[in-house]
Amino acid sequence: MNSSQSTKDKPLFTPGPLTTSQTVKQSMLRDLGSRDAEFIRLVKETRNELLAVAGVSQESGFECILMQGSGTFGIEAVLTCAVPKDGKWLIVINGAYGKRMQKIVEVHGIDYVTLDYDENVPVSAEDVDRVLANDDNIDAVAFVHCETTTGIMNPIESIADVVKKHARICFVDSMSAFGGVRFDIKNCGIDFIVSSANKCIEGVPGFSFCIANRASLQRTEGWSRTLSFDLFAQWQGLEQNGQFRFTPPTHTILAFRQAIEELKLEGGVAGRENRYRANCRLLIAGMRKLGFEEYLPEHLQGHIITSFLYPSHKNFEFETFYNKLNDRGFVIYPGKVSNANCFRIGNIGQIFESDVESLLQNIEQVIEEMNVEMSAIATQ
Amino acid sequence: MNSSQSTKDKPLFTPGPLTTSQTVKQSMLRDLGSRDAEFIRLVKETRNELLAVAGVSQESGFECILMQGSGTFGIEAVLTCAVPKDGKWLIVINGAYGKRMQKIVEVHGIDYVTLDYDENVPVSAEDVDRVLANDDNIDAVAFVHCETTTGIMNPIESIADVVKKHARICFVDSMSAFGGVRFDIKNCGIDFIVSSANKCIEGVPGFSFCIANRASLQRTEGWSRTLSFDLFAQWQGLEQNGQFRFTPPTHTILAFRQAIEELKLEGGVAGRENRYRANCRLLIAGMRKLGFEEYLPEHLQGHIITSFLYPSHKNFEFETFYNKLNDRGFVIYPGKVSNANCFRIGNIGQIFESDVESLLQNIEQVIEEMNVEMSAIATQ
Repeated sequence: MNSSQSTKDKPLFTPGPLTTSQTVKQSMLRDLGSRDAEFIRLVKETRNELLAVAGVSQESGFECILMQGSGTFGIEAVLTCAVPKDGKWLIVINGAYGKRMQKIVEVHGIDYVTLDYDENVPVSAEDVDRVLANDDNIDAVAFVHCETTTGIMNPIESIADVVKKHARICFVDSMSAFGGVRFDIKNCGIDFIVSSANKCIEGVPGFSFCIANRASLQRTEGWSRTLSFDLFAQWQGLEQNGQFRFTPPTHTILAFRQAIEELKLEGGVAGRENRYRANCRLLIAGMRKLGFEEYLPEHLQGHIITSFLYPSHKNFEFETFYNKLNDRGFVIYPGKVSNANCFRIGNIGQIFESDVESLLQNIEQVIEEMNVEMSAIATQ
Repeated sequence: MNSSQSTKDKPLFTPGPLTTSQTVKQSMLRDLGSRDAEFIRLVKETRNELLAVAGVSQESGFECILMQGSGTFGIEAVLTCAVPKDGKWLIVINGAYGKRMQKIVEVHGIDYVTLDYDENVPVSAEDVDRVLANDDNIDAVAFVHCETTTGIMNPIESIADVVKKHARICFVDSMSAFGGVRFDIKNCGIDFIVSSANKCIEGVPGFSFCIANRASLQRTEGWSRTLSFDLFAQWQGLEQNGQFRFTPPTHTILAFRQAIEELKLEGGVAGRENRYRANCRLLIAGMRKLGFEEYLPEHLQGHIITSFLYPSHKNFEFETFYNKLNDRGFVIYPGKVSNANCFRIGNIGQIFESDVESLLQNIEQVIEEMNVEMSAIATQ
């Protein structure tokens, strides 16, 4: 293995790990001591920059906690720290990531109720309002911002407003959206929001992060069900001596620091959202032209990732389609919708309109090679 | 940040993150899709190679599970999966990492007893034998191989033999030793052993791994107290489609795969142990010559990391000593012993005798600069 291979990697049209810039990856060509001053400074900067990306700061009452591991580890941390021993969650579900949150509280034996939707239906703030009005025992509400299962964008601000109105804790899984979607954490009263290094900030995978309202975070002292996922203790460690309690992924953090600089150069969240939206528009227009159809109605479709229905023609077989695109150097993503056959194409990472155009050309050629007639869907 | 900085990094005389080779770091200059065939192959190879490093294989009844996050995450996984709901651990403690295991079972409310030693006393197999003979309720025993707190090496094979004689589950935290210390997992009947990517295999931090006896692993189905740390489910995921359940640290795994190749080139565990032992011998001889004294008696001292007592001279102040060495380009490590003032110097990572010699020369100069007279200790 050597660095010359790096230029050959296929663009990843996935929800992450993503294609990252060469400069982000090159930042990892260093070995920093995890308790050394330079690394401590790097961690502090990273936490402050993340608060800035979220439009908040320590001065405005927010804290940033980095947590080793995948995004799900950060989700498990909040779900198992943010309510007391006898606390109760409302888990709002309209896709696989909402379901995963249910699994987490289930395995920990934490009391919960769910509010369930079909995967092509957005969460309704009115429904959340009604559930909270009827159940005073609910301490906290968890929902997903952009459900990566389908790409549906839930109305984060109106849901958070309702949770705040009822004075409950509001937790948003913004894994695939944070950094690529403009929204207001502070004014809509979100208490905890989690995302990970390898999504819209365009770093490499290895940790997740939580932006927390300080007062809400402070209340969780002693509530953690685990040692590793103790958000309060992790925050205290980072505040007291700037160090992680347990070995941090130093190289991943170096890459992430560089990724944040590149986000700023692109014009911050607004600039990045614009690029992703352009990718998404081009993708959907091109796919429709080829005869493909999105799973979601247009007004529910987010700009992070798009689910497309399998063409109904008998010659279409996803495995073949995927492999043929892969052989041509394009990595797409399998579907995750439970009641429809879909595949997914992501718009995030170092993917530009020219990449989307190349992908579309190759999809057209692959469909031809497979002798899939597209008219069946195109005329629906 | 750019790659030219990489050559300037200070050698890390720490227990990890370590100094890694340039080729290991360069392996991270790629973006692989986490569900793509190339990455799936890489993960499979990595798991098989790790079994080989441990001297076992799938054919001989062992499995390797990679777990995202720091080493402690892997420890928490085994402690919270390897015994049933009403199970009981014996936690053997002679340092901070044994104490951390106690904290983990404590926070999960898992029943346990401890067997405690001072930090300069090795675990005795006879004591473990006696405790197990007197308590049939103990399902499993956990102890630390090399206690990084001091550098003490516990007699892993004789302890494991005793645990096996009593037919209990044997779990070894071999975080800082695995890959750098020859020992026999199979014949001494270890059920679970955990280490992490950034220790003696000399990868970069980002995940831990567990070598498990398959029959013992299979028994844990449904026992996990968490979603993320469910060893059985993680294993099933890796076996069924070769994929992680949750986003893996793709770049860290690329680096690790290269690190394993470099371990093999060095002559495997035996070759690496030899280099570390040579570093350690040179370090201790040189430090003694300067008037320093080890915390541990010689026959208990492992070759991974060495704790040195602070010189008793009034001018010695660790912070100054550390910073002056750091300014000269050498990163050492603070102490962790509870009843003595120590600092630590690690022998692992891409550290060679010439690096140890440079470190010793610089320590001599710093001690002179600080006007610390060393005779007080040297004549003890």
